[in-house]
Amino acid sequence: MVYATADGGGARKLRIGMVGGGRAAFIGAVHRMAARLDDRIELAAGALSADPENARLSGLDLGLNADRIYADYRDMAAREAARPDGIEAVVIVTPNHLHHPVAKAFLDAGIDVICDKPLATTLDKAKELIALTRAKNLIFAVTLNNTGYPMVRQAREMIKAGEIGDIRVVHAAYIQDWLTEPIEAEGQKQAEWRTDPARAGASACLADIGVHAHNLALFVSGLELDEVSADLTTFVPGRRLDDNAHVLMRFAGGARGVLTASQVAVGNLNNLSLKVFGTKAGLEWAGETPEFLRFTPYGEPTRILQRGGPANTAEARRGSRMPAGHPEGYVEGFANLYRDAAELIAARRAGRAPDPAALAATPDVVDGARGLAFIEAAVASSRKNGAWTSARLT
Amino acid sequence: MVYATADGGGARKLRIGMVGGGRAAFIGAVHRMAARLDDRIELAAGALSADPENARLSGLDLGLNADRIYADYRDMAAREAARPDGIEAVVIVTPNHLHHPVAKAFLDAGIDVICDKPLATTLDKAKELIALTRAKNLIFAVTLNNTGYPMVRQAREMIKAGEIGDIRVVHAAYIQDWLTEPIEAEGQKQAEWRTDPARAGASACLADIGVHAHNLALFVSGLELDEVSADLTTFVPGRRLDDNAHVLMRFAGGARGVLTASQVAVGNLNNLSLKVFGTKAGLEWAGETPEFLRFTPYGEPTRILQRGGPANTAEARRGSRMPAGHPEGYVEGFANLYRDAAELIAARRAGRAPDPAALAATPDVVDGARGLAFIEAAVASSRKNGAWTSARLT
Amino acid sequence: MVYATADGGGARKLRIGMVGGGRAAFIGAVHRMAARLDDRIELAAGALSADPENARLSGLDLGLNADRIYADYRDMAAREAARPDGIEAVVIVTPNHLHHPVAKAFLDAGIDVICDKPLATTLDKAKELIALTRAKNLIFAVTLNNTGYPMVRQAREMIKAGEIGDIRVVHAAYIQDWLTEPIEAEGQKQAEWRTDPARAGASACLADIGVHAHNLALFVSGLELDEVSADLTTFVPGRRLDDNAHVLMRFAGGARGVLTASQVAVGNLNNLSLKVFGTKAGLEWAGETPEFLRFTPYGEPTRILQRGGPANTAEARRGSRMPAGHPEGYVEGFANLYRDAAELIAARRAGRAPDPAALAATPDVVDGARGLAFIEAAVASSRKNGAWTSARLT
Amino acid sequence: MVYATADGGGARKLRIGMVGGGRAAFIGAVHRMAARLDDRIELAAGALSADPENARLSGLDLGLNADRIYADYRDMAAREAARPDGIEAVVIVTPNHLHHPVAKAFLDAGIDVICDKPLATTLDKAKELIALTRAKNLIFAVTLNNTGYPMVRQAREMIKAGEIGDIRVVHAAYIQDWLTEPIEAEGQKQAEWRTDPARAGASACLADIGVHAHNLALFVSGLELDEVSADLTTFVPGRRLDDNAHVLMRFAGGARGVLTASQVAVGNLNNLSLKVFGTKAGLEWAGETPEFLRFTPYGEPTRILQRGGPANTAEARRGSRMPAGHPEGYVEGFANLYRDAAELIAARRAGRAPDPAALAATPDVVDGARGLAFIEAAVASSRKNGAWTSARLT
Repeated sequence: MVYATADGGGARKLRIGMVGGGRAAFIGAVHRMAARLDDRIELAAGALSADPENARLSGLDLGLNADRIYADYRDMAAREAARPDGIEAVVIVTPNHLHHPVAKAFLDAGIDVICDKPLATTLDKAKELIALTRAKNLIFAVTLNNTGYPMVRQAREMIKAGEIGDIRVVHAAYIQDWLTEPIEAEGQKQAEWRTDPARAGASACLADIGVHAHNLALFVSGLELDEVSADLTTFVPGRRLDDNAHVLMRFAGGARGVLTASQVAVGNLNNLSLKVFGTKAGLEWAGETPEFLRFTPYGEPTRILQRGGPANTAEARRGSRMPAGHPEGYVEGFANLYRDAAELIAARRAGRAPDPAALAATPDVVDGARGLAFIEAAVASSRKNGAWTSARLT
Repeated sequence: MVYATADGGGARKLRIGMVGGGRAAFIGAVHRMAARLDDRIELAAGALSADPENARLSGLDLGLNADRIYADYRDMAAREAARPDGIEAVVIVTPNHLHHPVAKAFLDAGIDVICDKPLATTLDKAKELIALTRAKNLIFAVTLNNTGYPMVRQAREMIKAGEIGDIRVVHAAYIQDWLTEPIEAEGQKQAEWRTDPARAGASACLADIGVHAHNLALFVSGLELDEVSADLTTFVPGRRLDDNAHVLMRFAGGARGVLTASQVAVGNLNNLSLKVFGTKAGLEWAGETPEFLRFTPYGEPTRILQRGGPANTAEARRGSRMPAGHPEGYVEGFANLYRDAAELIAARRAGRAPDPAALAATPDVVDGARGLAFIEAAVASSRKNGAWTSARLT
Repeated sequence: MVYATADGGGARKLRIGMVGGGRAAFIGAVHRMAARLDDRIELAAGALSADPENARLSGLDLGLNADRIYADYRDMAAREAARPDGIEAVVIVTPNHLHHPVAKAFLDAGIDVICDKPLATTLDKAKELIALTRAKNLIFAVTLNNTGYPMVRQAREMIKAGEIGDIRVVHAAYIQDWLTEPIEAEGQKQAEWRTDPARAGASACLADIGVHAHNLALFVSGLELDEVSADLTTFVPGRRLDDNAHVLMRFAGGARGVLTASQVAVGNLNNLSLKVFGTKAGLEWAGETPEFLRFTPYGEPTRILQRGGPANTAEARRGSRMPAGHPEGYVEGFANLYRDAAELIAARRAGRAPDPAALAATPDVVDGARGLAFIEAAVASSRKNGAWTSARLT
Repeated sequence: MVYATADGGGARKLRIGMVGGGRAAFIGAVHRMAARLDDRIELAAGALSADPENARLSGLDLGLNADRIYADYRDMAAREAARPDGIEAVVIVTPNHLHHPVAKAFLDAGIDVICDKPLATTLDKAKELIALTRAKNLIFAVTLNNTGYPMVRQAREMIKAGEIGDIRVVHAAYIQDWLTEPIEAEGQKQAEWRTDPARAGASACLADIGVHAHNLALFVSGLELDEVSADLTTFVPGRRLDDNAHVLMRFAGGARGVLTASQVAVGNLNNLSLKVFGTKAGLEWAGETPEFLRFTPYGEPTRILQRGGPANTAEARRGSRMPAGHPEGYVEGFANLYRDAAELIAARRAGRAPDPAALAATPDVVDGARGLAFIEAAVASSRKNGAWTSARLT
């Protein structure tokens, strides 16, 4: 097969700025690796920390010019928007509660947004961002990054092509164990804000990992989630938000599903998985072995589809950089989101239509808001002892 | 290691009779293989089919004496009870709706019972059997056979010993695909009765496979199921009972769980699995690779415990016939139930206390009734749109 | 699918006797379980130990009549041959060095033989048994038991049907770790005789496990082994025979292979595996997960063929007792050998042609002798520092 | 755990140039991704193709300044060496036969080298490069990239720490299927030069993939390879070099090994694996699931060590960018080589001692030459019908 050109291809690089992601942060570094993997994007500015000194040092670490290291994101939005060589997009990798104000500031300044999940801490704020994005006619990509895996995209494409028939059942799970003990009380910074209602939102477990499972299920299945019945639990004494979620799902059209998310599932590190069963076939994928996709037409043996190998679809090939058997991973999938977001931004700025494949594959502000609709519905359902609650984005 | 003696050990064989299990039946042959694996049990009588000619031919197939081939189980109960060399236990492998009347007939005749799951088609009938068993002071074993796997027994023993701490989360699933299409309408006999309310009970999917997942979860965890919230679905047009079940569970003491059972999960043949997460460790097991048990103490690498290999517990060793790496399977696990049931019956007849390990490992009439409590609670919950419903056996 | 009838089918049972396999032995109990699984065979006599008291007690354990418990196998051969209800076949499960004399005694007495592997301790003795078997026109089955696994038989059938094209490469391995330490010096009886040249033959590792890998490779591939180049090693100090073997293979027709056998491969319990690569496809199977067969047509995704599931061949179905996903294991595979051997013996005695499938699937005295040709060639090659040495049975 | 800083850390970037790797090449793009992942290296010059127009267009693709796009590598060596801002290292990603002349040119010009494997097409040329590197006192890294995987480094570190005891057995394999058919005759460029003796050297299969398995075995085990006995085969009609290699190995100190390499192993894409068995424990790793390392202390259950998870060694952590369960892959491992090579080069230029961990982990010109010693020994042995042949680098 022919692999996607993984280099810049001579094009001018897209200039991005980053808010959050300074020293000691986790996901910011992942975004930067993903952004530079294909050499089509350059980091030109940053407000990398709410702490000015950390912001400064982090900016220097990353080789930013001193005049483009900002202590305040509002300042950055204003000044970058004013520069002729200003950033063309902002990447938001702060704790959840800042996604909304930061995104708003940059949208207001006319700058496209690439924002980490969850889109916001409430559905109302998420809807505000939809409205603002539409009003400004800007690009708003949400890094629900599992959509970037080639085999995830292949699964979606196969379903869209009717290969599994009508979907009946969807099982999605994201289980991990890093919050098995109250490490937020012991100074673990990542755990602190993720279990703090003021910074994480109404749910820790769903906001942190549940939305990934939810998005993966919707992205692959193409289904619309209708309503949920949830049982959220806080197992660790002293924890302020849930650390385990069991959610039943009903989809438009009649499919049913289960979503489980746990941060106390000892022995699982980042075990994300999806199973989709239709009238004609079934598909199964797992995030810790992302190169493989199980596909079983009813009455036939299971096929192991391997990224880069036989029977890869166009979308799988489009997102593939390595030959089969040279494993790609998390960063490569993430980089596919960056590549596609860059295409959408470049197209918008050039006034041309974007590559339809990139458009279709990029989770946007509406997808992000669906995550909030899901979280709020699950939290509400759980508070009402599992009453079925609409999770539709209205 | 020293393996369990798999032969008769010179002891007189237990005489059993079988009701159901004639030509074209499935599970009866499994019971017979399991019963004879250790050469401690002999089949001495049978009412193997409701059809007299099939009963006769099936009995001849099995080498029964002509005078112990019965056309009617009531007749068999009466006459075997009267013989000095009469059967010491009856094995019931009929469709579900006959479990109760057959068991009742033999209990009434003073004969111990080994009955397939589900125990009955209603909880009321199950409770009648409990009462009768107690009144008669007889043995009543239910072949919830997954409890016979050595690694399942090991998991239970480890949990009982506190190795995973307090249980927080239980995920049980039994998914398969053989009812993906309406094969009951095409003359498949097994599918016919299993999807017929008159013969299967109030649920097909839960009665056929859900009770296995339910029993496995309770047996291993040692927890008591408190209440359930269920979403049962019939996906296949024309089907008269559910073919998919999603069930949330709450256990006494605060643990939470999810149980999924599906007969339309294309690509899964008999995929039974269990995950139990506690405060100190996690355990995972799957029925299609039953020789392995994943065990992860929190903060340590996952261990793969292999049947017959290092770190096997006493119960794992007790149920093991082969060295590690010479795989045991379904029949061997099933045979462990037969071995233990035979011990309970022999002990009762001898007026002695049974081996406590055999007693603890054998699902009995109460365990069987718990399955019905679970089915009825799930069906009721589903009808009430998922309202949490008690699944306790009261 | 329809499963093989696993019960006797009303036929008179084949009467067998056993030499070896008394208390504390390992493989004898496996043979007995395998023999009785289908209820077509009964153990009628035994010389179960060279120690008369052990022989007596072992016989009583197994419910033998006192007059058919023998202290000496020659006595047993003579007296059983003379009885009208004498055994119809002898099962030989002694240490290796006794296979030849015991087999000879029973062949001389006109009794069919089922003998454990390796057939003998030398090729010359193996050839004697071929000659005698032919002269007497008797059945001689060798329990190279991996040939009994349904997925192994399926692999063979697929190759025979041309599904992988012309074979190029064969990789066979049997690695385990039970002899990592000098347990034969610490009183472990199984280890003692298996590492004793007088009882095991010229090689421990090849005689014990290498012949399984060798036979599996030949059985599945259908190839004839031409010559070998071997490097045998004794790693454990004080051990008298090899505990590790690396063997290059050349097959008639040009295919090449590697066979590895190790008893010091820490972390492997009975890890037998086979890979066969042809011009059109590849097949892979492993003995610790025997229910699955990987099949990859060139340029297509890998298929996971599961026993009992879709795309099973006639031979896989013939050897299958359980639905897919209810795992079968070592005993069931072994029982397939017994079922087929019983058919060959019954046919011979009845003067009719046997079921061709049973005939084709049963390793016989010639296959057993091929194992000796392989062992002797490998030992000779290793002594000549790896010189290519003919492994043909001439 | 704390993850390695994956960003530049504010340091000036190392300037590299590339020879080979233009449009349509494969491995060059991998090197560039690996080089830029951590943002510590910048591509400043290139002679990217022997075809001047391809070289020019490829250079423009990569954003090189026109005056640093060279049509001839000798020209590049001379002019870059003369520039004050000239490249600090050259990356050689040409077909094999050019490795030696290109490396020589840059070494002569005083420029450090990062060269793809195999180091050269003959051992003599490899030795020349050793001598020249030493004479010039330069850095020469060879991208035997599997050494970059964190779990490979962990395996090495555990062995060095004595955790598996004395090594007895090493099994290494690299099997793939892309040369199952004569695609070199059908215009596949990668296949053309890799099977062309003039460009690939004396062996195709060993030069292309066998050296990876060889290097992996030596890197992890720490053993010195003493001699080999090989059987090389060309299966595909018309092919000019071998496409399958079976090699027995003897190591200094007495350990034994088997190495298999195949390019016709249908169903395997890039299936590299290593098993090392010692007196105390065993370790197993596979390149298609590189995040996991199986570790079994003798007599204990197997542990699954996962990158980023519990029980990771210092070296595993040093090479890790992502939390456990967010899979890293081929590029990340490759990038670890670049990170370490950059450290060695920076240290040399600064006249300081390099990080000892980086030094220990980087395959150098001597390791590269060991690969040629291995290839030549295997080819010679195969020509002498498997005679044991020294593979030592003398």
